[in-house]
Amino acid sequence: MKRRNFLKGAAIGGAATALAAPAVAQTQPKVQWRMTSGFPRSLDTIFGAAEVFAAHVKAMSGGNFEIEVFPSGEIVPTPQAVEAVGTNTIEMAHTCSYYYWGIDPTFAIGTAVPFSLNARLMNSWLYEGGGNDLLNAFYAKHKLYGMPGGNTGVQMGGWWRKEINSVDDLKGVKMRIAGIGGKVLEKLGVVPQQIPGGDIYPALERGTIDAAEWVGPYDDEKLGFNKVAPYYYYPGLWEGGPTVHFFVNLDKWNELGPEYRAILTNAAAYANTDMMAKYDARNPPALRSLIAGGAKLKAFPADVIDAAYVAANEVYDELSASNADFKSIIDNVKAFRNEGYLWYQVAEYTYDTYMIRNRTKG
Amino acid sequence: MKRRNFLKGAAIGGAATALAAPAVAQTQPKVQWRMTSGFPRSLDTIFGAAEVFAAHVKAMSGGNFEIEVFPSGEIVPTPQAVEAVGTNTIEMAHTCSYYYWGIDPTFAIGTAVPFSLNARLMNSWLYEGGGNDLLNAFYAKHKLYGMPGGNTGVQMGGWWRKEINSVDDLKGVKMRIAGIGGKVLEKLGVVPQQIPGGDIYPALERGTIDAAEWVGPYDDEKLGFNKVAPYYYYPGLWEGGPTVHFFVNLDKWNELGPEYRAILTNAAAYANTDMMAKYDARNPPALRSLIAGGAKLKAFPADVIDAAYVAANEVYDELSASNADFKSIIDNVKAFRNEGYLWYQVAEYTYDTYMIRNRTKG
Repeated sequence: MKRRNFLKGAAIGGAATALAAPAVAQTQPKVQWRMTSGFPRSLDTIFGAAEVFAAHVKAMSGGNFEIEVFPSGEIVPTPQAVEAVGTNTIEMAHTCSYYYWGIDPTFAIGTAVPFSLNARLMNSWLYEGGGNDLLNAFYAKHKLYGMPGGNTGVQMGGWWRKEINSVDDLKGVKMRIAGIGGKVLEKLGVVPQQIPGGDIYPALERGTIDAAEWVGPYDDEKLGFNKVAPYYYYPGLWEGGPTVHFFVNLDKWNELGPEYRAILTNAAAYANTDMMAKYDARNPPALRSLIAGGAKLKAFPADVIDAAYVAANEVYDELSASNADFKSIIDNVKAFRNEGYLWYQVAEYTYDTYMIRNRTKG
Repeated sequence: MKRRNFLKGAAIGGAATALAAPAVAQTQPKVQWRMTSGFPRSLDTIFGAAEVFAAHVKAMSGGNFEIEVFPSGEIVPTPQAVEAVGTNTIEMAHTCSYYYWGIDPTFAIGTAVPFSLNARLMNSWLYEGGGNDLLNAFYAKHKLYGMPGGNTGVQMGGWWRKEINSVDDLKGVKMRIAGIGGKVLEKLGVVPQQIPGGDIYPALERGTIDAAEWVGPYDDEKLGFNKVAPYYYYPGLWEGGPTVHFFVNLDKWNELGPEYRAILTNAAAYANTDMMAKYDARNPPALRSLIAGGAKLKAFPADVIDAAYVAANEVYDELSASNADFKSIIDNVKAFRNEGYLWYQVAEYTYDTYMIRNRTKG
């Protein structure tokens, strides 16, 4: 009897229910987006971060928000990724901001500039030091909204066919290195080359180029550089804490309700932490394997690093002179870096120093 | 006309709509939980991580999943927090796993044990090295599900009334230090004391204790220790990457649908990254201010650290002899640490070394 009444009441109120339905749908609308990755599927850690992100967004939205991830070049080539997002050809990209420094050098700061922050301080600057807000004020000019979405940690200084003993040995070296890092090394006599990942190995093998930087042990091992350019230099002084970004078309971002914006924000933070966690777990065995395969691990000579530091500051000054966005953001990063490392050197660095020297004793 | 038909159709279909409604509600049920923090509201960074988490969960669920956060002691005292969650007195706690090592020493590993992983390697072990799964298999015995939810980075070695120049100076020192760190220093002659945060200052001032460890510059400054125990030692060798956990009652966790489990997982990852970001941004000015206020920054003498390392390994062996969970998880952490620092020392450490020495030159 009561049940019948309930059903009857429901039937009477049916029209109201149907009218109210859009309000329910409004909180969880079906969304289908496409995201281009700046990376090939074979780089499973960095490409995989976009898949981790998409899977979490789908799970958190109960399947309502689906983002299809495409490897670099399948629907958009990497060099056009942010333009494709800005013009809403696709809704999202997962790529390195510094690939687009040719559009505006300010893009470089979002990923890494030489002698900038390590991964942890980069996160601190982005999330807490105003970095995300500063970058997004800039990205908005390109109709983009950016969220940190992965980090590799300090990269390696690349694979070199010949040993280098001083800054003089850099003169005339043809090196595959992109972006502002190339501009800095150019001041030291290096001739920077832009070569896609798949073409680096044959270029090194034939001697068309003398050196190439890529990422770190786990990704580098896949490409087999140790067989053709055995000197493996560290650290990658041009990439202290390279951040990968999720870029969303700004209008699409603004159209999302607060629920979906929060879901994307949290999924990006998960992917950011997860990618760094994966590199830190996967790099050690890869490093062992590379050394067993003939890689000769070498630190850059001190005068090379010092000269690169001077050159980097010159490059920043030159870019700052003609670009107000670059100047204001790089000045902010530098101030944060100088303070950040003040504390970092005390407890963090001395702890790491001890553990590095004694790790195998316990 | 069409609109009328639509309304009529809706009215006819009203019963079906009403019956289908629970399916919609099932994907986003209203949930109201309570979470106790292990920390007072005054520790805004570490207490705040629970508020950040709750705010993100609420936003992602469109307001349907609400978690009320209570400071330590308001509904549950910190020492009873995991028991209260395990028995479902409250649904969640945000606290340090190592506070509960008296229940089982295995709890200590979830936060930090002496000479273990730094914050980044801890994340790597937890998310990618199997750490979360190993810990959750243990936590399940206490009806808990744990998620990493914050990190302080390497802590400081505490405030000391007198300078220490060798391990002999530790003999008889009454020090406020909790957990396994206290057990390790006990082997070096320290007399560990368990004192709540608010009682440390008067105990140091009166000389009832000789030393006290707390967190790092930002939190320590609030308590004014520099005025009564000026020697500020580093590093906190018993806490390399202390992780704070979100604990959920295991039955409550299992009752959640995949959507809400994903929402909690991602919000915890956001809080984890955000808390570390905040400490890294807030510690540098606090360190400057403490030094201006009379703190004397000192590195622990080398023989103190060496003796503590030996003692820590003895403590691990003793605990491992009688506790299979502790043994299997500490062995796993040690193996991960020894491999993790193998790679960390190459690019990461040399980069940091250079930046620390040269940060103010650019």
